[in-house]
Amino acid sequence: MKRIAIDMDEVIADSHGSLLRIYESEFGKRILPEEVQGRSWEELVGEDHAAHIRRYPSREGFFRALEPIADSQQVLKALMEHYEVFIVSAATEFPLSPNEKLAWLAEYFPFISWRNVVLCGDKSIIAADYLIDDHLKNLRTFTGTPLLFSAPHNLRVTGYERLHSWQDVAARFL
Amino acid sequence: MKRIAIDMDEVIADSHGSLLRIYESEFGKRILPEEVQGRSWEELVGEDHAAHIRRYPSREGFFRALEPIADSQQVLKALMEHYEVFIVSAATEFPLSPNEKLAWLAEYFPFISWRNVVLCGDKSIIAADYLIDDHLKNLRTFTGTPLLFSAPHNLRVTGYERLHSWQDVAARFL
Repeated sequence: MKRIAIDMDEVIADSHGSLLRIYESEFGKRILPEEVQGRSWEELVGEDHAAHIRRYPSREGFFRALEPIADSQQVLKALMEHYEVFIVSAATEFPLSPNEKLAWLAEYFPFISWRNVVLCGDKSIIAADYLIDDHLKNLRTFTGTPLLFSAPHNLRVTGYERLHSWQDVAARFL
Repeated sequence: MKRIAIDMDEVIADSHGSLLRIYESEFGKRILPEEVQGRSWEELVGEDHAAHIRRYPSREGFFRALEPIADSQQVLKALMEHYEVFIVSAATEFPLSPNEKLAWLAEYFPFISWRNVVLCGDKSIIAADYLIDDHLKNLRTFTGTPLLFSAPHNLRVTGYERLHSWQDVAARFL
């Protein structure tokens, strides 16, 4: 059985959406996902506000409150019938996040065993056939087939096979 | 640079010692580490008490209170000058443990970056040149060189290169 490693933030958990909601609630400015289009926080809101936004993930409760990405639950469950699926999340940078991420997975992806969850930092230690991730830094060092999952911040990136949505994931693998 | 993956419990963190201390404090029976000698909890204390002991790691605070294994801090720090060192711990089975493990590492191994910490379940996903671990189930599926670190529960195990202590680790790698 081939093994697929799947990132959490921006792939199954909508962290970007939460950042926009918190920013709007604190500064009263609404940024639409369409406005982001590969632009950095600095380009969107200026350096001071960008520094604020970059600290939101360090807050207690941030990762527990995320919404699942559209169709991720159904498609991931279907993948598990044909592939060995691992969730691989860069979590150790935020020391409060691992327990929240496990509780979040238990709520939204209860069919994934604890055996198949990896909370790490540098993903070059991951051995799998495929990696679905929104960050180039993770895809670059991967020894299997890297697949770029579309997120507002990576829409200008080229050079990788891109999956625009979980419907795309289903079409690629099922 | 070759990569060494190093387990936490029974390799750098003395979880067995804590289990014995909690058991003694609750049941008034002292078991010496020398008595264990590869025997299961069931053989040592009977089925009922063994079931109690197996639940201790699910308690809040268990993993935060462990003592480091002798010489692990100094030798691991020295290893980092010649190898890429990753801490790889089976933590996701105990949903309260990941944050405690990160806090524990920050206290006793502050020289290890969050980038080099992996909290996982099934370690067959780990890509490294060496794995130092006390559990056969982790060593069996490892694709690099497996090294069995001596712990009270594995003293009867044969068929693997064995490291009895962190002095042995130093002699093997430095």
